[in-house]
Amino acid sequence: MFTRVTSDIIKNLITIVGENNVITDTEMLENYAHDETPLYYSLPEVAVKPSGPKEISEILKLANEKRIPVTPRGGGTSLSAGSVPIYKGIVLSLERMKRIKEIDEKNLMVIVEPGIVTGEMDREIEKHNLFFPPDPVSLDSCTIGGNIAECAGGPRAMKYGVTKNYVTGLEIVLPDGGVVRLGGKLLKNVTGYNLIELIIGSEGTLAVVTEATLKVLPCPTVIFSLLIPFKTVADATQFSCEVIKMGLMPTAIELMEGDVVRAVGKYLGRDLPFSDAEAHTIIEIDSFDISEGRRHYERLGEVAMKTGALDVFVAESQKDRERIWEPRKKIGEALKVQTTIVAREDLVVPRDRISDLISQLKDCVKKYNGTLYAFGHLGDGNIHTDVGFSDIKEAAEKRIDNNIIKTMRREMYEITIRLGGTITAEHGIGLSKIQYLPLALNRRALELMAGIKKEFDPNNILNPGKIFG
Amino acid sequence: MFTRVTSDIIKNLITIVGENNVITDTEMLENYAHDETPLYYSLPEVAVKPSGPKEISEILKLANEKRIPVTPRGGGTSLSAGSVPIYKGIVLSLERMKRIKEIDEKNLMVIVEPGIVTGEMDREIEKHNLFFPPDPVSLDSCTIGGNIAECAGGPRAMKYGVTKNYVTGLEIVLPDGGVVRLGGKLLKNVTGYNLIELIIGSEGTLAVVTEATLKVLPCPTVIFSLLIPFKTVADATQFSCEVIKMGLMPTAIELMEGDVVRAVGKYLGRDLPFSDAEAHTIIEIDSFDISEGRRHYERLGEVAMKTGALDVFVAESQKDRERIWEPRKKIGEALKVQTTIVAREDLVVPRDRISDLISQLKDCVKKYNGTLYAFGHLGDGNIHTDVGFSDIKEAAEKRIDNNIIKTMRREMYEITIRLGGTITAEHGIGLSKIQYLPLALNRRALELMAGIKKEFDPNNILNPGKIFG
Repeated sequence: MFTRVTSDIIKNLITIVGENNVITDTEMLENYAHDETPLYYSLPEVAVKPSGPKEISEILKLANEKRIPVTPRGGGTSLSAGSVPIYKGIVLSLERMKRIKEIDEKNLMVIVEPGIVTGEMDREIEKHNLFFPPDPVSLDSCTIGGNIAECAGGPRAMKYGVTKNYVTGLEIVLPDGGVVRLGGKLLKNVTGYNLIELIIGSEGTLAVVTEATLKVLPCPTVIFSLLIPFKTVADATQFSCEVIKMGLMPTAIELMEGDVVRAVGKYLGRDLPFSDAEAHTIIEIDSFDISEGRRHYERLGEVAMKTGALDVFVAESQKDRERIWEPRKKIGEALKVQTTIVAREDLVVPRDRISDLISQLKDCVKKYNGTLYAFGHLGDGNIHTDVGFSDIKEAAEKRIDNNIIKTMRREMYEITIRLGGTITAEHGIGLSKIQYLPLALNRRALELMAGIKKEFDPNNILNPGKIFG
Repeated sequence: MFTRVTSDIIKNLITIVGENNVITDTEMLENYAHDETPLYYSLPEVAVKPSGPKEISEILKLANEKRIPVTPRGGGTSLSAGSVPIYKGIVLSLERMKRIKEIDEKNLMVIVEPGIVTGEMDREIEKHNLFFPPDPVSLDSCTIGGNIAECAGGPRAMKYGVTKNYVTGLEIVLPDGGVVRLGGKLLKNVTGYNLIELIIGSEGTLAVVTEATLKVLPCPTVIFSLLIPFKTVADATQFSCEVIKMGLMPTAIELMEGDVVRAVGKYLGRDLPFSDAEAHTIIEIDSFDISEGRRHYERLGEVAMKTGALDVFVAESQKDRERIWEPRKKIGEALKVQTTIVAREDLVVPRDRISDLISQLKDCVKKYNGTLYAFGHLGDGNIHTDVGFSDIKEAAEKRIDNNIIKTMRREMYEITIRLGGTITAEHGIGLSKIQYLPLALNRRALELMAGIKKEFDPNNILNPGKIFG
């Protein structure tokens, strides 16, 4: 179905991007063979590092003619194996395209290349008192291009929305090398179909983004963090619903359920307060006025006490805030040393069903002798669940392609869908959820998507094997 | 290319929706022959009023088999002739499908049928202390289905965004009768391509929306309105940029430039304050706390005075607020009696270019002996411009299909695009902007859109002649 990368192709690639930007050495190619999704691995034949849309256009033209698969790659932090070059071929790494082309303080717009690390862009624009709200936890290694490919979210999505809410313009290169510019520094735009939002979240299967115009916001002048433990996830869920209903929109309402709290406490070697509570929530508030911010957290505290909070801890200083967030940020590391994670999900349900979701999922996973660790974005109804096995031998047997794990994951998705939810909120389908996609979408919806893919990429060279299999 | 509606087809339609819901009487069909776009008119052969997705599915299946054009219709308030049945055939009026199926106060979600008038839904959900932010000026006659078809905005888009930011789920019927459900009460969702946002703004050319799940917000408890006149549009533009840069995000910053202020003042028969000013801005603030709201407008007032405001009028009571907004809401009526409007645009540029846009457009229109009336959403960079002729004879000559008007419109669009803008922010391409679409999008972008249209509607029966011609 696909052509192999010959030495002639390599020569052509060298002509396009220069010898230094073509990687064929196996050891170096290892870096491009995986992402952050456990257990997925596939070595590409070559990795190329173009410097701009013209080179990308030539690479894609060549690949399209010769029928060579091309897997675009940002920071390699995908959690759905979206950047694993499953059919080998060419990895198109955007790592050299990391310029900030413009910071427009008047229009609150930033124009960037896709390869810039999100956190680096954040630090740069902060010097101008601006911020880009989407804040995936991987922001120190993921890229804007990857964020666009997945429509990344993060804790602040609660108040500010996700990546798609901040992209107003794109330059894209199509699989046949054609270049299209869409939108601009425009807050409203209905000129033809919304191709921008079709590209966002399309996981690198439709086009390669070579430039993005991003809406940014003025930096709030005060940020407060709260830790509010609850006896049960049900209480925490009710709290989150109440708070939002009252118009008290915090920046984030994050959740760590009991098993996570205890795993992280153990890892950090410090006693977390109320570590026997079944739900810790971390709330963030931002404002342009310190007294408004304080009134905001006082009212939040009142709602919390009414909905069964065990206590309310407030942090105003940067240091105290970091201490409150530290457990949330260390979840990944903590679980890594204490258990073997075989499945990572980012399920989403209507906000009020979070507690039902977690309890049903915990029961489900327990049947397989695993433990479900649930944490994430309570306010959005979007919960990350890691399934771990503390017995390493048992974990090794339960690899991702193991039928038992497949059955378990299917059950987890079915539970989610029965609660009105869907199978991915911000990680994408990628490779790891393809077989479950028909649980969430009917045949006609899938046919339409496949038709759109074909329209953009008739030879299926761009990130083949993803979303549609 | 299309088949005519025969008496057999009429019989079939009667079988599907019942005799009372099939209109063939010419006089009654007149109601379905036009919308709010000046000068466009085309009588359909029949209008049908289905009661739900099943009937719509059967109608579309029939039309698709027989190759009969179907023009979906909401409130008929389109400003781009989007609901004019240019190829005759069937008008599919959603007027009977106006139920609110669910108001979910816990998740702040509402499920509605497409035919409900937006303002009626607003009043109903307000009883539950909820509000739907998009507020097109036509909200007392437009429908949610129409808002979705056009991705409607309105003054509040400034703070709250447009229709697409509030639609989390859709049920759609495809041109071949297939039914697809997408999304749900979900704040985040990346399960496959974003078909929801592809449908939003597709102007009824891809599918018929039969149900929408809408995100709503808790009603703010206080709303204040400000009238701030500026000597020039440039001062007003600078004010709007400054305010947003400082994080003082009002609900709306509306503009009426001098000619509009004076036309409305004359119509209302009252002296508007500073009616010689070249820019009146109307600012709205909302909050859940009266003292916060007041601090907010005090700070806005300070910025205004620093950027050259002539005065700052604040209205706290409902009555005073209405008095401030009255001129803005009466623009349409005022212009109607004083001039003949031959072109209505909704151009959008980067926020800081509004003043350049208006002055260049005014010069352009003057060349043709017309007057440009500019008003609209200053904070979004989205300005509505009506081109009027006070000499009725001259206006009558300058019909929309007149070459002089075509040349003038093209010039207006070229000016907009040179300033980094595009040709439609919230009204859509419809019929009235088709020939100008290539000014805003390159050939490849248009080909992709046409390919998507073909994927959804291979026989081109759904709202044919719109967007693509």
